[in-house]
Amino acid sequence: MDIEGRTGLERLASRSHPVCGPDCSSSAGYAAINSICDYYQSIQDRPVKSDVKPGYLLETLPDAAPTDGEPFEKIAADFQSLIMPGITHWQHPKFMAYFPAISTYESMLGELYSSSVSNPGFNWICSPACTELEQVMMDWMAKMLGLSDEYLTISGVGGGIILGSASESALTAAMAARERALHRLTRSLSPADAAQTSGSSTPIPIREQYTQKMVIYGSTQTHSLGAKAALLLGMQFRAVPVSRSDDYSLRGHALREVMERDVKEGLIPFFVIATVGTTSSGAVDNIAEIGKVLKAYPTAFLHVDAAWAGVAYALPDHRKALRLDDVNQFADSFCTNAHKWGLTGFDCSLFWIKDRGNLTEAFDVTPAFLRSKESDAGSVIDYRNWQIALGRRFRSIKLWFVLRSFGVTGFQQHLAEGIEHCQQLASIVNASANFEIVTPPSLALLVVRLRDPLAPNSPDEVLNRLNQALYARLDARHDVMLTQTVLKSVESEVHCLRIAMGGVNTTMKDVQEVWEVIESEGRQVLEEYRSQRELNV
Amino acid sequence: MDIEGRTGLERLASRSHPVCGPDCSSSAGYAAINSICDYYQSIQDRPVKSDVKPGYLLETLPDAAPTDGEPFEKIAADFQSLIMPGITHWQHPKFMAYFPAISTYESMLGELYSSSVSNPGFNWICSPACTELEQVMMDWMAKMLGLSDEYLTISGVGGGIILGSASESALTAAMAARERALHRLTRSLSPADAAQTSGSSTPIPIREQYTQKMVIYGSTQTHSLGAKAALLLGMQFRAVPVSRSDDYSLRGHALREVMERDVKEGLIPFFVIATVGTTSSGAVDNIAEIGKVLKAYPTAFLHVDAAWAGVAYALPDHRKALRLDDVNQFADSFCTNAHKWGLTGFDCSLFWIKDRGNLTEAFDVTPAFLRSKESDAGSVIDYRNWQIALGRRFRSIKLWFVLRSFGVTGFQQHLAEGIEHCQQLASIVNASANFEIVTPPSLALLVVRLRDPLAPNSPDEVLNRLNQALYARLDARHDVMLTQTVLKSVESEVHCLRIAMGGVNTTMKDVQEVWEVIESEGRQVLEEYRSQRELNV
Repeated sequence: MDIEGRTGLERLASRSHPVCGPDCSSSAGYAAINSICDYYQSIQDRPVKSDVKPGYLLETLPDAAPTDGEPFEKIAADFQSLIMPGITHWQHPKFMAYFPAISTYESMLGELYSSSVSNPGFNWICSPACTELEQVMMDWMAKMLGLSDEYLTISGVGGGIILGSASESALTAAMAARERALHRLTRSLSPADAAQTSGSSTPIPIREQYTQKMVIYGSTQTHSLGAKAALLLGMQFRAVPVSRSDDYSLRGHALREVMERDVKEGLIPFFVIATVGTTSSGAVDNIAEIGKVLKAYPTAFLHVDAAWAGVAYALPDHRKALRLDDVNQFADSFCTNAHKWGLTGFDCSLFWIKDRGNLTEAFDVTPAFLRSKESDAGSVIDYRNWQIALGRRFRSIKLWFVLRSFGVTGFQQHLAEGIEHCQQLASIVNASANFEIVTPPSLALLVVRLRDPLAPNSPDEVLNRLNQALYARLDARHDVMLTQTVLKSVESEVHCLRIAMGGVNTTMKDVQEVWEVIESEGRQVLEEYRSQRELNV
Repeated sequence: MDIEGRTGLERLASRSHPVCGPDCSSSAGYAAINSICDYYQSIQDRPVKSDVKPGYLLETLPDAAPTDGEPFEKIAADFQSLIMPGITHWQHPKFMAYFPAISTYESMLGELYSSSVSNPGFNWICSPACTELEQVMMDWMAKMLGLSDEYLTISGVGGGIILGSASESALTAAMAARERALHRLTRSLSPADAAQTSGSSTPIPIREQYTQKMVIYGSTQTHSLGAKAALLLGMQFRAVPVSRSDDYSLRGHALREVMERDVKEGLIPFFVIATVGTTSSGAVDNIAEIGKVLKAYPTAFLHVDAAWAGVAYALPDHRKALRLDDVNQFADSFCTNAHKWGLTGFDCSLFWIKDRGNLTEAFDVTPAFLRSKESDAGSVIDYRNWQIALGRRFRSIKLWFVLRSFGVTGFQQHLAEGIEHCQQLASIVNASANFEIVTPPSLALLVVRLRDPLAPNSPDEVLNRLNQALYARLDARHDVMLTQTVLKSVESEVHCLRIAMGGVNTTMKDVQEVWEVIESEGRQVLEEYRSQRELNV
């Protein structure tokens, strides 16, 4: 690229158009590729975490943009010396916090190509390929995951769209659900009242009457995206309690109990988020029970959030445990992120719905008289009418590159490897004296806690203190990165440690080394605890 | 990168970790850089528009992902042969439709580096550099644009955030405005009612009482993002009429008239979108008048949408015409897109607010008792609490690369060049017989229409038909890309042609050649029109 040695300012001044003139050297571009390659070749030699203090960059960078342009060599060097120290290395073999956020070369090159044809993507004409590739990719993924044919874009009724995040997907579903519920409530209205409308076809009097009575449901394990969707819609969120004996899975009867209580008070259940693979423990809500409960609530819409686990539907052997048939039968919409465990870089949230009309009703500002069944069902989709924002990125490219380079087999092998690591680690933990597995291993996620083998019946309160101390020690280290969680149920509150495997750069050796660190810190915690007890005796 | 010759599947199978093994050849990465360079070196030889038919890619691509991985060479070749034909070339020197959506090498490399450290960015610890670089970039931009110090993140009170689009920014502002208005209405409430809350601190009875009465205001020229924000919030949108004699600028008295009527009916004005640089004609709403009207409406919040024009605040000579002082005095929030005219690729929407508490009140799901003044005002910002979604991209990198490579001077020169082209074209149009300028040239946007020099007093209806015919002819061409618009006012409805200059690859020669095409088609339209009239006589 024609940047090396010439600043953007100099290029403009020399008026060489297009930007990459006859002496295009590409060296800034090659240098970028090389430095990224170097990064990945040596990432394991770095600490996982950054050790910068808050404000490190605020103090370092100048407080204003430079007057004149600087050579790109200098800028690239600053990326290494100023930015990289402040990076948490999610791609590190020993990053096992939160969930994986994998990036692959295929994905990175997809982003590069995408940026070269940058456009706002708000309708088909912005670049036909952007819209159409997305349609095809969402159908490829639906098939690979075994989703119902109802979700295929080619069906002309349902369809998929790539959004930015699972939280955006959930809010998108909630807005669609709100309009669908209001429509169902409107059907009982008089024509006079039906004449007054807001931007959509739902009359204002209906909105006034019902909106504030509408409630969103999840469990206490549901990701904060549920509470946030309610916050943004100005509605209430009910976190239905779960049982430890159900492995933190949301049960139908518990949901029904809460909903019935709400209905008695004149409230309206309209949106339920069921999770496949909760953040804390990888729990799977009882989709069939939930779906059957919702049959009694025509205003309710079921969204299944499988942000992390959903890509594992690519492994047919895991579909039963992850309740795929129930999702296909009962869910109105479904979301999983290719950008967690799915080999594709952030952002790539895959959102499917069985009736695209739910989306256009909520998101299309075209006046009703200008809409047509054809545009809603036809091969030309204007994705701006299926989502919150108008403009959108060309995200499908990186997914296409990933799926073609790995193939279904490669995608499955990647997932299977993480699951295998988790199973091996589970065996190791089961054989260990100082640790126990808290919830059944879920795919590549293992949830453990420190125990006291000298006092095997220690109450949760005691163990919780030990595990908080353990996490504090682990959190102070930079050679591993893990996250803790508190599993809350009707029975108890359990502090544990999550080990989220599945990173594409992680080997079993890395898993073992992380485990050795955990065991070592665990021994320290137990020693201190025992010393303290001796002192106190 | 280690992709060339080895599929993702093969790499996994060979278990070479990390992904780029010792034989890393980088050739797929270099090839990508080369092909992008080739693209930009020859872009002017392509037609601007794609000529593919709807469904072209749906028919071409296989209907499922491949079972096994494919070599990247093949995938990259398919990008050229399958995707590129379906691309509309927004970077083409003769692309003058909508507004520019510029991409530069600096921006592309920024995206590449960003993708290499991909992470969900929901809080500071995800990667301190991601949060802190964004804080600094938003302050750099605020200073470069001459925005009030109140918008600086370093102020600890106000602040900026990079969002995905101007429509997302407007919705973000609207949600913040809703909560602020509800707060102001709540202060009059009794403690008993104040006890019932939804996710935020606004009691449900207040929401029930007021939400459906709240109204959003813009003008008939406001971008559809205004109507969409209302649609998504389930509220009404008022499009206040504008006058041709005011050059389509929203006036305070017109806004007041509509608001007073609404207030009489018990409605509550809570959010006003004023535009600096409307899409149709680059009009600038009368911010000072609007701001003064809103002093009588304590529940109202003023958001200024300067999606395209706002970057031109970097040119001090243009600040007066673009009403910067008034924006600084009266606007609660402000948005401009670096990804239109600002040398940075999509997505990069810059959103500032004078009180970040407005954002955290609307977007932070942390229970109130866990919040602290320190985290709200401190140097550690968790951007998920300032926006709709939880996860977010590392967008500030490409902006940093652009600002450092061009410098303020280069940024200004780029803008000045587009403005100069527009001024030159305006002179040419003024001297032409068959065309007239419809609205005052605005920065790099010129709005013209075909006229009939033989009938200089033709009514709008006649000229509109001529201009619709002109646009149909231009739209059928692939060597230029332009957009039409219909300027609606209390006086008239005028069909015109927009020529949106300012692309970084566009020279005056390109502008002249596009103009020649427009004139040529204009002559054709006039000839046909006259032939038809002779036949009809």
